[in-house]
Amino acid sequence: MKHAFRKDDFAWDGVDAAGYKTTGEREGEGFRGVTRHIITGANGEPAQFHVRYYEVEPGGFTRLERHEHIHSVTVVRGTGYAIVGDAVHEIEHLDHIYVPPMTLHQFVNTGTAPFGFFCIVDAQRDRPQPATAHDVARLERNAATTGKARV
Amino acid sequence: MKHAFRKDDFAWDGVDAAGYKTTGEREGEGFRGVTRHIITGANGEPAQFHVRYYEVEPGGFTRLERHEHIHSVTVVRGTGYAIVGDAVHEIEHLDHIYVPPMTLHQFVNTGTAPFGFFCIVDAQRDRPQPATAHDVARLERNAATTGKARV
Repeated sequence: MKHAFRKDDFAWDGVDAAGYKTTGEREGEGFRGVTRHIITGANGEPAQFHVRYYEVEPGGFTRLERHEHIHSVTVVRGTGYAIVGDAVHEIEHLDHIYVPPMTLHQFVNTGTAPFGFFCIVDAQRDRPQPATAHDVARLERNAATTGKARV
Repeated sequence: MKHAFRKDDFAWDGVDAAGYKTTGEREGEGFRGVTRHIITGANGEPAQFHVRYYEVEPGGFTRLERHEHIHSVTVVRGTGYAIVGDAVHEIEHLDHIYVPPMTLHQFVNTGTAPFGFFCIVDAQRDRPQPATAHDVARLERNAATTGKARV
């Protein structure tokens, strides 16, 4: 089965856009301007993983959080940075980010165009834990991440 | 952790190229000109999936085969087609192909440049079964796939 890519709206035939979070969080609660497309995993595919495409609008950011499951992220649109643990990585087309278990992470759009990436996760996974005030203070004290976290 | 993408050789820092098949098959035994990069899964990452980048050189093709595990495939370089069951899909940048369980499939480069795609699979998966002579004859009799299979 083919999900044809549509350049005009950066979307795929047969793949609906979904909200960023499915567990009740709302825009402004730690994230801004994020949409999500579930490319594999929304239709009962017999797989142990889900493939999602996330898009972050200019000025937007995903939620700063951690969880046991890992992320395998590949950029396919725009530019931004990823906070992963105590490091900040500038990323653009086809750069890959691995987020290990229980590692604080956030994706921030730094450009004037949408910033989009595939993010692959285990189908069965734990619920993300938002960063605490202590986490944010720690990032601010760390030279590499000062001023980078968005809340 | 960042695996920086290298435009010059279409590869990623810290990701080694591997052979296409790991179970003893050799070039000419049903496939041609295929390389593989394991982006997630070669380093003990605690995940139920593997993310691989496959690249097929001009004139090349992956092996026509089937298996119980599914494929989630997204093109990021060049052009080609995918045989999936009884259909042929022309595919290019960011088109997505879903290969259901036990569905015969093959990826063929139709361009003059390399044809590359991400292919995500379960970490624990069954061994692929190559197409039989009967399979190939059936594809030849099917109008949509006549002349498309490469062996």
